[in-house]
Amino acid sequence: MNLFLANIEDNKALLTEAEAHHAKRVLRLSLGESIYVTDGNGYLYKGILDAFEGKKAMVVHLEELANTQKRDYTIQLAVAPTKQMDRIEFFLEKAIEIGLDTFHPIVCFHSERRKINHDRLEKIALSAMKQSLKAEKTSIHQLTKFEKLISEFKDFEGQKFIAHCYDEIEKNRLKEIIQPKGNYLFLIGPEGDFSQQEVKLAIENNFTPISLGSQRMRTETAALNCVMISNWLNQ
Amino acid sequence: MNLFLANIEDNKALLTEAEAHHAKRVLRLSLGESIYVTDGNGYLYKGILDAFEGKKAMVVHLEELANTQKRDYTIQLAVAPTKQMDRIEFFLEKAIEIGLDTFHPIVCFHSERRKINHDRLEKIALSAMKQSLKAEKTSIHQLTKFEKLISEFKDFEGQKFIAHCYDEIEKNRLKEIIQPKGNYLFLIGPEGDFSQQEVKLAIENNFTPISLGSQRMRTETAALNCVMISNWLNQ
Repeated sequence: MNLFLANIEDNKALLTEAEAHHAKRVLRLSLGESIYVTDGNGYLYKGILDAFEGKKAMVVHLEELANTQKRDYTIQLAVAPTKQMDRIEFFLEKAIEIGLDTFHPIVCFHSERRKINHDRLEKIALSAMKQSLKAEKTSIHQLTKFEKLISEFKDFEGQKFIAHCYDEIEKNRLKEIIQPKGNYLFLIGPEGDFSQQEVKLAIENNFTPISLGSQRMRTETAALNCVMISNWLNQ
Repeated sequence: MNLFLANIEDNKALLTEAEAHHAKRVLRLSLGESIYVTDGNGYLYKGILDAFEGKKAMVVHLEELANTQKRDYTIQLAVAPTKQMDRIEFFLEKAIEIGLDTFHPIVCFHSERRKINHDRLEKIALSAMKQSLKAEKTSIHQLTKFEKLISEFKDFEGQKFIAHCYDEIEKNRLKEIIQPKGNYLFLIGPEGDFSQQEVKLAIENNFTPISLGSQRMRTETAALNCVMISNWLNQ
């Protein structure tokens, strides 16, 4: 059965235009069919497709379902998008399937990519949410400068990590310091790594510098590894 | 510095044709430059590019380096390739960066894809090995039928897992049964899962049926998750 994102009120769900189009024109669903709907904020319902109204679609007889994927921890990831955007898009899809709350694309000193197509990432996030039948939509932030992100998380209540590859700056093995049932923020740098100054700024702002192991990983591999590991740790 | 695959003998390394071409024509390396070479079987050396001979290249003054990525466990993965081959290619690249010993593409009852380009997967494996500076090349097997693979691993000394999504067949939470420092084989099915008969055949052959969590994952996401988790567990 298919899942759709909708505005839900008074026991009725109104599918957004794009979602209604998908239901009507792509999947060719008929009125009277059962579908799943979610508000994207953790609530999941089963309902009956009742009417196509203009460009929208109405779902009635909503029956709330248990959100079996609800988690008692949160994962945020700040990643410098790679030169080849398809690498980040693939990463994002996988990360959302496994479980990611918030994605912060960042611009760093060594970033080759300083623009992103935010709408495209939003579409990928929506599609991955639907594919994996999640009731919570991953929040995709606008591209932010590294320094701004650091200051935004000044008072973050959780564990803040920055991954880097410099031998001359302290590093902790993630496995030895990550705690279960927490809120996590991981910072993953661009091809060419964060600058040493960026790593130091993060450490001054209470980020814990980490190493992800002896492997040399691409940006998107390191980011995905953080998401998979922290979900596994909390299973 | 760049890593190349070579035949190594008598303290000299002879780069294969494709590798020599890459060194000469793509990277435009000069004679006298330092490069890394590996035999793909765990040995890593630093040496000097000494001569381009016909389509080959010779590296001399080899100095053996410690293989810091050596592991005391092995990971084998048997996966039914997805309809969209780029999904499997991306998965394979990431899996090798993190650490994968052997990849077995398999054909199952529900497989939509019954052919693969083996040479292309070999190229991806080589490229990912070089990118992540590994001294061991992931072995890429030929496409094999599910039943044949099951019988080939009859006497496997390690943990054999088959992931499936059937409510009516037993499943164990991977987290509760996977043991560190072992040899692992994971079976991941196609879109549409293994058939129930396939799952039962695997169980009869001492595979442990597993669930990877409450998320609904695509084939390549589940496969990558197994690789990342088992490497993390053994770190």
